[in-house]
Parts: sequence; C-alpha cells; structure tokens
Amino acid sequence: AMDGAPPPTSPTGLSAYVAVSQLLGLTLLATTGAWLGRYRGGVAWHSPLQFNAHPLCMVLGMVFLQGDALLVYRVFRHEAKRSTKALHALLHGLALAIALVGIIAVFESHRTKGIPDMYSLHSWCGMATFVLYLLQWFLGCGFFLFPGASFSLRGWYKPQHIFFGIALFILSIASCLLGITEMLLFKISDSYSHFVPEGILANTLGVLLVAFGLVVGYVLTREEWKRPPLAEELALSMDFKTLTEGESPGGGS
Amino acid sequence: AMDGAPPPTSPTGLSAYVAVSQLLGLTLLATTGAWLGRYRGGVAWHSPLQFNAHPLCMVLGMVFLQGDALLVYRVFRHEAKRSTKALHALLHGLALAIALVGIIAVFESHRTKGIPDMYSLHSWCGMATFVLYLLQWFLGCGFFLFPGASFSLRGWYKPQHIFFGIALFILSIASCLLGITEMLLFKISDSYSHFVPEGILANTLGVLLVAFGLVVGYVLTREEWKRPPLAEELALSMDFKTLTEGESPGGGS
Repeated sequence: AMDGAPPPTSPTGLSAYVAVSQLLGLTLLATTGAWLGRYRGGVAWHSPLQFNAHPLCMVLGMVFLQGDALLVYRVFRHEAKRSTKALHALLHGLALAIALVGIIAVFESHRTKGIPDMYSLHSWCGMATFVLYLLQWFLGCGFFLFPGASFSLRGWYKPQHIFFGIALFILSIASCLLGITEMLLFKISDSYSHFVPEGILANTLGVLLVAFGLVVGYVLTREEWKRPPLAEELALSMDFKTLTEGESPGGGS
Repeated sequence: AMDGAPPPTSPTGLSAYVAVSQLLGLTLLATTGAWLGRYRGGVAWHSPLQFNAHPLCMVLGMVFLQGDALLVYRVFRHEAKRSTKALHALLHGLALAIALVGIIAVFESHRTKGIPDMYSLHSWCGMATFVLYLLQWFLGCGFFLFPGASFSLRGWYKPQHIFFGIALFILSIASCLLGITEMLLFKISDSYSHFVPEGILANTLGVLLVAFGLVVGYVLTREEWKRPPLAEELALSMDFKTLTEGESPGGGS
C-alpha cells in the first residue's frame, strides 16, 4: 500500500516504550499464572478451581488485550486506517469474549459454593466497567466501522470514544487491584500481614498492573507519538469537511 | 489585571462540569464522614479512633484537594499565569500536609495495636503514590515556580509534569478504593456479603470517588477547555523561543 512512498519510520522512543509495554504485559500473565498455579491449585473449569479462571481471564482480556487494542494506532501508524480500525475492534472483541468467560467463571463458582454475587466494591466496579466496555465497543463499531454515521457525527464522537476508552482501561486495572486485595483477604488473611511469599507475589502483580497502565497511558497520550494522518486521509477529510461544514455541531475553537 | 481587555468568558459546558465536580467532591467528604461517624465511632486523635483520621485525611487531601489543584488552570483561565501557578502549588502543598497527617494516623494506630505496616497492596500503592506526589511537587516548584529553569527545560518537563500529575491523581483514587475494600473486609467480613447498609454506603463512596475522577479527568483532558495563553504570555514565549531555539533538547516534530 506504500509503493513509491518513502519508507515510513516510527519514533525510536515509541518502539522502546511499546516493547516495554509488551514485556510488562507478558510478565503480568506469567505472574497471574504463577500465583494461581503455585498457591491456588491451578485453573480448571468443571471443578472447585473454576473460580481461578476469573483472575486469569480478566487480566488477559480486560488488561493485556484491551491495552494492546488501544496501542494499535501507535504501533501500526503507517498502515491504512481501515485495517487498523478493524484490528482495534477485533482485539477489543476478543478481550470482551475472554472477559465474559471470566465473569461466567465467578458466577458459576459462587453458585456452586453458595456465595452471594455483586455485593463487593470489586464486583460493582468490575461489572460497571465490563458493561460500559461492551457499550463502548458497540458504539465504536456503529460510529466508525459501519458506514452510515456522518463525518461530523464521527468527529463529535471521536474525542468521547478516546476519553472513555482510556477511562475504561484504567477502571479495568483498578478493578483488578480490588480483586487481588479481596482474594488475598479471603484466602490468606491470617498470614498476609507476615509478608508471606503469596502476599508479596500478588502485591507485585498489582504493581505490574499499575506499571502496564502507566506505560500504555504514556504511549497513548504523548503528543508527538499520535498517529499522523496519511496523505489520502487528509485529502478525504478535506473533501468531507467542505461538504459537511454546515452540519457541524459547533465544536468550539 | 484585565483593565481595557474585553470581559473574559468561560465555555458554559466547562462551568457546569466544574460545578458537578465540586458537588461530587463535597458529597465524597460527607459520605466519608457519614461512614466513619455512623458506623466506625467517629474520628479522634489520641484514642482508639485515631485510625479513622486516615481515610478522612486521604479523601480530603489526596482526592478532593489534589483534584481541585489540577482544576485551577481551567477555572482561573483568564487570571495571570503566575498567580494561578501559585494557587496550584499551594493546594497541592495543603493536600500533601493533610495526607501526611493521615499517614501518621495509620502508622501510630498500627503501633498502638501491634499491627504490622506496609504489607498490603493498599499500603504499597498508597505509599508509592504519596512519595511520588511529594517528589512531583518539589520538581514542579523547582521547574516552574522558582526562577532558574530555562525556558526549553520547562518546555521539556511540562508534558511529563501533566502526565504524571494526572497519573498520581488516578493512583490516589485507586489507593482509596483499595483502602475501602480492606477496611470493609477487616471490619464487616461476616456481614458484607449480606448487603448491610455499611457495605452499601462504603461501596457508594467508592463509586463517588470514581465519578469525581471521571469528571475531573474529563475537564482536564478536553481540548477546547485548555487554558488559552494570555496575549502577554504568547509574546513572552515567542521572545524566549527565539533566544533559546539553539538549546532545545530536540523534542520531535
């Protein structure tokens, strides 16, 4: 698609930060696996270990994949916008599917053990985040992926989509931190204050979650690293702007 | 200071969002007070109630005052930059002082009761946030308030200061959510799952903290609401830029 154009380059700092984010993401998954495998008996579906699928799915879906979905516009900065959008929607869709499995795991495990649902701050924050994330995904597909939304409507929704996208990513991480704290106080409340290895490991998972959020957030918000519009997008947007100038919802200066 | 200039106006949406943020902030404080007063025996210093000073001080300092310190550039958008900066530093300083009282409260209370310090994820996140917030305050004063830092150095540091400022505000709220969860599982672990009023109230405090963070974050990041540079600042920055162009640390395109 770039034939004849000069070879595109990425800012070097950007590549380093993206590499660090992926290392952190994989370390997150490994640490979650180590916690569940070494101290919580592992993960299995039709068994008393079903609950353990919950933290694994939520870290994989709501943190790692959601974070990577946010990064695609920085990583694939010179690909066609349409394919990058499709990848963005696909990764978020995958994140939602995996998170749904994780949510089913906790509800089924509660039912089996007779534990009430949805009473804790973790469950309130986590469920609100998941429902709003699903809504955001539908709105994103409706506004940006399928034809029909006018150029000015897309222009109005885009900053909202970006703000709530980053907010939901942060809320997902905060919900994970709450889940870690809950699980430690349910399982090792007697030994947690004696700095036992399981407590240190799970706390470290919390710190890694924060670090992943910080690196992804830094990459997303750094002005010089924003995706530059391709030449054809600029031309297209000019055409549309001229056509739709009248119906712009007056978005300030 | 604005003699002769046309009367400055604020975007109407901005004023409404700022008003909502302040209502939420006051509701936060009232809800914290209601929780501690109605269910936790109130707040007192030289007493077994000393611990209760911790949540109150942290919500007041690290959330309400820190959030308001971030908002001053949006609220006082037509005041001289120097006085707005001083207010920004002052509010952060006050937040730090109140948070320090809250931290002393928990350490003294732990010592009295023989509870170990710094073992939980809440304590790790909270302490890291406080130490980095103090560091950020010193760096902010050094770079922006006292003379000495060159214009190009300030220009390099400013986006970092803004990113880490917002990140520390978010981390402060996340630490509060962890603290709420810990306190509920320490105090009402037997009844929390039965939807007792104290659990609902404390969960609601968590939701209000998230709502305050969302509204403040929205006001801070909305492009049209950024503080417009005053005419004299623009002229000044032009002069400085011409003088210091050579020593710019090459900040990308």
